[in-house]
Amino acid sequence: MAGNSFGEIFRFTTWGESHGPAIGCVVDGVPARIPLAAEELQRWLDKRKPGQSRFTTQRREADEVKILSGVFEGQTTGTPVSLVIENQDQRSKDYGDIADKFRPGHADYTYWKKYGIRDYRGGGRSSARETAMRVAAGGIARKVLDHILPQPVTIRGALVQMGPHRIERANWDWDQIDGNPFWCPDAQAARDWEGFLDGIRKAGSSTGAVIEVVASGIPAGLGEPVYDKLDADLAKAMMSINAVKSVEIGAGLEAAALSGEENADEMRLDGNRVVFTSNKAGGILGGISTGQDVVVRFAVKPTSSILTPRKTVDRHGQETEIVTKGRHDPCVGIRAVPVGEAMMAIVLADHLLRQRALAGHVEA
Amino acid sequence: MAGNSFGEIFRFTTWGESHGPAIGCVVDGVPARIPLAAEELQRWLDKRKPGQSRFTTQRREADEVKILSGVFEGQTTGTPVSLVIENQDQRSKDYGDIADKFRPGHADYTYWKKYGIRDYRGGGRSSARETAMRVAAGGIARKVLDHILPQPVTIRGALVQMGPHRIERANWDWDQIDGNPFWCPDAQAARDWEGFLDGIRKAGSSTGAVIEVVASGIPAGLGEPVYDKLDADLAKAMMSINAVKSVEIGAGLEAAALSGEENADEMRLDGNRVVFTSNKAGGILGGISTGQDVVVRFAVKPTSSILTPRKTVDRHGQETEIVTKGRHDPCVGIRAVPVGEAMMAIVLADHLLRQRALAGHVEA
Amino acid sequence: MAGNSFGEIFRFTTWGESHGPAIGCVVDGVPARIPLAAEELQRWLDKRKPGQSRFTTQRREADEVKILSGVFEGQTTGTPVSLVIENQDQRSKDYGDIADKFRPGHADYTYWKKYGIRDYRGGGRSSARETAMRVAAGGIARKVLDHILPQPVTIRGALVQMGPHRIERANWDWDQIDGNPFWCPDAQAARDWEGFLDGIRKAGSSTGAVIEVVASGIPAGLGEPVYDKLDADLAKAMMSINAVKSVEIGAGLEAAALSGEENADEMRLDGNRVVFTSNKAGGILGGISTGQDVVVRFAVKPTSSILTPRKTVDRHGQETEIVTKGRHDPCVGIRAVPVGEAMMAIVLADHLLRQRALAGHVEA
Amino acid sequence: MAGNSFGEIFRFTTWGESHGPAIGCVVDGVPARIPLAAEELQRWLDKRKPGQSRFTTQRREADEVKILSGVFEGQTTGTPVSLVIENQDQRSKDYGDIADKFRPGHADYTYWKKYGIRDYRGGGRSSARETAMRVAAGGIARKVLDHILPQPVTIRGALVQMGPHRIERANWDWDQIDGNPFWCPDAQAARDWEGFLDGIRKAGSSTGAVIEVVASGIPAGLGEPVYDKLDADLAKAMMSINAVKSVEIGAGLEAAALSGEENADEMRLDGNRVVFTSNKAGGILGGISTGQDVVVRFAVKPTSSILTPRKTVDRHGQETEIVTKGRHDPCVGIRAVPVGEAMMAIVLADHLLRQRALAGHVEA
Repeated sequence: MAGNSFGEIFRFTTWGESHGPAIGCVVDGVPARIPLAAEELQRWLDKRKPGQSRFTTQRREADEVKILSGVFEGQTTGTPVSLVIENQDQRSKDYGDIADKFRPGHADYTYWKKYGIRDYRGGGRSSARETAMRVAAGGIARKVLDHILPQPVTIRGALVQMGPHRIERANWDWDQIDGNPFWCPDAQAARDWEGFLDGIRKAGSSTGAVIEVVASGIPAGLGEPVYDKLDADLAKAMMSINAVKSVEIGAGLEAAALSGEENADEMRLDGNRVVFTSNKAGGILGGISTGQDVVVRFAVKPTSSILTPRKTVDRHGQETEIVTKGRHDPCVGIRAVPVGEAMMAIVLADHLLRQRALAGHVEA
Repeated sequence: MAGNSFGEIFRFTTWGESHGPAIGCVVDGVPARIPLAAEELQRWLDKRKPGQSRFTTQRREADEVKILSGVFEGQTTGTPVSLVIENQDQRSKDYGDIADKFRPGHADYTYWKKYGIRDYRGGGRSSARETAMRVAAGGIARKVLDHILPQPVTIRGALVQMGPHRIERANWDWDQIDGNPFWCPDAQAARDWEGFLDGIRKAGSSTGAVIEVVASGIPAGLGEPVYDKLDADLAKAMMSINAVKSVEIGAGLEAAALSGEENADEMRLDGNRVVFTSNKAGGILGGISTGQDVVVRFAVKPTSSILTPRKTVDRHGQETEIVTKGRHDPCVGIRAVPVGEAMMAIVLADHLLRQRALAGHVEA
Repeated sequence: MAGNSFGEIFRFTTWGESHGPAIGCVVDGVPARIPLAAEELQRWLDKRKPGQSRFTTQRREADEVKILSGVFEGQTTGTPVSLVIENQDQRSKDYGDIADKFRPGHADYTYWKKYGIRDYRGGGRSSARETAMRVAAGGIARKVLDHILPQPVTIRGALVQMGPHRIERANWDWDQIDGNPFWCPDAQAARDWEGFLDGIRKAGSSTGAVIEVVASGIPAGLGEPVYDKLDADLAKAMMSINAVKSVEIGAGLEAAALSGEENADEMRLDGNRVVFTSNKAGGILGGISTGQDVVVRFAVKPTSSILTPRKTVDRHGQETEIVTKGRHDPCVGIRAVPVGEAMMAIVLADHLLRQRALAGHVEA
Repeated sequence: MAGNSFGEIFRFTTWGESHGPAIGCVVDGVPARIPLAAEELQRWLDKRKPGQSRFTTQRREADEVKILSGVFEGQTTGTPVSLVIENQDQRSKDYGDIADKFRPGHADYTYWKKYGIRDYRGGGRSSARETAMRVAAGGIARKVLDHILPQPVTIRGALVQMGPHRIERANWDWDQIDGNPFWCPDAQAARDWEGFLDGIRKAGSSTGAVIEVVASGIPAGLGEPVYDKLDADLAKAMMSINAVKSVEIGAGLEAAALSGEENADEMRLDGNRVVFTSNKAGGILGGISTGQDVVVRFAVKPTSSILTPRKTVDRHGQETEIVTKGRHDPCVGIRAVPVGEAMMAIVLADHLLRQRALAGHVEA
């Protein structure tokens, strides 16, 4: 009810502030007897970890995750999995100025209006540091998908737009993702973006981005009409990530401009298997997966932590100005890629368990 | 869990198939002693009702809503409000062809894969007929907002794009909304769209649309971090509406192309009141309302019921073709306007009650 | 949140007041392709129906249930099943006196304090009439259990104590249940109770009762530690029935007086099958079913509708007296038997689906 | 869904195994700006802590609770409160024998059947060690009640029966509770029990108990009809505590033997205030609090860890015997007293927040 949990059957709750002693989460609803080790989660956390290139915040965090419960002799037991990461490089002294002033574009003002108190150190609970636990929980979700489904599942994210610059879709090559600091599938675009983002960074400014996450190997039948449609839950999952301002499924916003003939994906047979001749639907019809790739896209706004002085007010009701110093990402969209992947994995694992509950016996 | 409910405290559950005897919903979580009459809900239902112009389906439904419980002597009692609408013009005979064949772009195939059975008559549960009950529940949500909040709340939707044709934002005039069959705030655009949509209609084709819903009078502080952010719940609410493929908050997708300086809304004072110099955020920061207008936009795909024959398969595993006859909307986005308004009202009412539960005593 | 729903995966919501136009419920979470007809639910409703002997209320209700959705061509479709019963014999004129006065032992006063308004006619929402929908939902739950489990499941309730008079456990014979108006398994006790209850009835008084419900054929493994233990959910389910004041599992309250040696059920083998040499546990250990009979007992207080004048207050803050006229049950425990059976079926069906979600693959 | 959470608005999730590195919980739904320090929770934990007399287990645990999040400058912030207690005295070597054998009366067998794996060390997740976190969460719940309600709230538990020996109700004196090792309100009974329990302890046997928990200062109007009645939620809360086999409200099981005249509590006025002339109802009518003391009683079975050899089976499907060595409580009911108090506080705090959400404005 207070909103720090996500999922119905595969359900996790995160806790912790940016500059508190630790952050953590409890994942309840993990099936028993799945092999699980902290290293398997660390792999994904390392992908999100700050300070890996000059394009992400220079805060130094090992982000080393520990498993405190729910695993016995290398396997899950069906009881809650408690994960914790200790905060290390907090530098609370940096944040004196924002104790009083509300940073424009940040959650400072709204937390204050909602609670009448706020842990201003590093953004407290509203900091994107919380997303580390999403990534860890997403690592467990991937294990659940792999454990239950006979076919391999692949969940990959990519940066498809930085600021106003989009990739060329014809250049898409998943193998490029790990070859640049942006998780960009278009090698040429990635090269161009380096210069663009260096300019932004040096100017103390910031820019937005668009991330696309694709899940392959997902069976048809996942998603619950009417309100817990697979796309509805994905929309919530992605929009809940810090700084996200839009979510699209498949053709997304562009579907509005299409005709019915262009938009509806036709069906054919490949042997006994139903195949679609296109995927405008993004793998979801009527809120239920079709068996095609599930495709989600979301836009991230430019971070509001910039060096240009901005007009604002303080908590004493005075007009003032603020410059947000400290260590920040010129394009927070980069580090949102593993977070989007994690949320995709979590939504799919949850709906797979839901489907098993209600329709485990259907073989149509 | 099976997904036919929405909301946490203000929570409703809908039921019914397009061609069953009736559709209905139960709204649980309505505060007591709110004056409520069926006519107040009918007002909104009439706005969504089919057959009001040549641009919407010619199915004839009075859509007369009855209140079966939860109201005593003209006031809510705090117990569940049960609403029902009897189906009248079902014409089940029209649907012989789709009993076997899966319509491309429809939920036929996915319901079949999920359940191994489907009520194919008029789309059954996947029909947009279900949205009538959202509109009815939304009518109650509006009453809850008005009952609790001291200031007036206005929730209005508008069609801002039809097919590839956008309105001119400079022409926005709320007073135009009721003056054309599209709920379009730009009188010139509305005139242009008539010809465009007549062409679509006569060709037996269809087109998509973009709807914008704006809520004014909403206090700061609504929305629960981290996973039940106000924007996250709005994203889920809108994406759960039939045919929706994208959801945006405030600047939305365009925020990706902005710089931090352009995007962050600065704050000033107007007397004692905090005001913002722009509203790129769409009235939400950190998942919590700022007190500005809450602005949501969503794109609706073109309906997949078109007269052009389309390639598909049937449930016996054979390739075939299908033409979707019957009565359909050339632009389902039109009738999505009151549905979007209703979902906005529902999300806001729910979060208002949630806020009252946890922070009713905060006066910052 | 407002409390008119029960269950997590098999979840139903009831609505309706005693003297409103109808009562009903929506069952969401029914697996698809289960054969279902209204007659199968009617069977259980007839068991609860008033006016079947001189020992239950003389209100005349056909209690004919209709299915409005979720069933197509005789099978469930996986979408919500909406059930409705129209109220017939309401006699609202009987209730003038209780519009103002709070009946001692009834919910009149607490509804008034909670809501500031109440539908006083026949108790409104607090009337035991609501339990008719539990029985209907329980009928669907039985179908779910039978559909999923390979072995037969039997859920039966019995009255084991009326007022101070207990049955003789040695006389227990399930075949006697239908042979007397009390669902009593001890033929001798049933005969004795007739005279006792006639005396109560003629005196315009009332008496309490204890009901025992036994479920056979339930597999081991149902129930979720720690807070959703099978016994915890059964306790909630039974305590939520009108007038219930205690719930016991297995040895129940008497377990307090036993030694560890007497209480712990030993285990042996019967071929490959684990068997227990006793069932003090009532079929549940650590909140999880053992595979033995699940045994629950609950006590029902005497109804507070009696002919003796009672001291009370009215809603204008005046002291007064009240005599509750109208048609009432001298022992409401009798009609609680099918309600207890229904709640048992509902809890078990829900936990069976929950188990399938998380541990469908375990075969230890 | 996997059952490790409790509450709707005031909601907590516990994690951890008896012999893992730590146990903990996350409390989500704590209103902001409540003063909170670890010491205030420690007070209640110390009451439950093992090893305080010769009548409880000799396991040595400091049970020192730490607050990891949700508190800033001594006040709650509205974000999740994460609590952790490190395990110290685990002695895992003691448990070799139970790795294979299922202890009668324990959850060993059912966890095995449910999950196909179990952390057998000290009972793993099924250990009563989990209840330490209930006590900690209960400490926060007490703070919430005190913070919101204008009047003082008192929640106290007492042992009212040990084995077959009941207290004399006429001797009830709350001041005696802290004067004996049993939280017994009858000084004479406490003295008698010492000898009784010494006998049990020296024989390596065990005995059950009955605990009564009373909450004073609770306003009328808490509890949600129909399924989330205050008594229904209390029944679930208490039955979820390890070893509990019955729950009663007010007159409880004895209500079955009463007449309507004896059972219904009459109402009078004390000045302007409604008062009841008795409290058979245990402070709850129709599932809603009346304003009288809320009275709950629950029975705890004798622990199944005894020195007498017991027949059982092992996980390889062989018949065998077992003696449960290790350190155990001869009467686990004693340490259940603070746990019952905690669950009472949690249910009341949750329902107080629920009431504020839906009916905060009612002043009847």
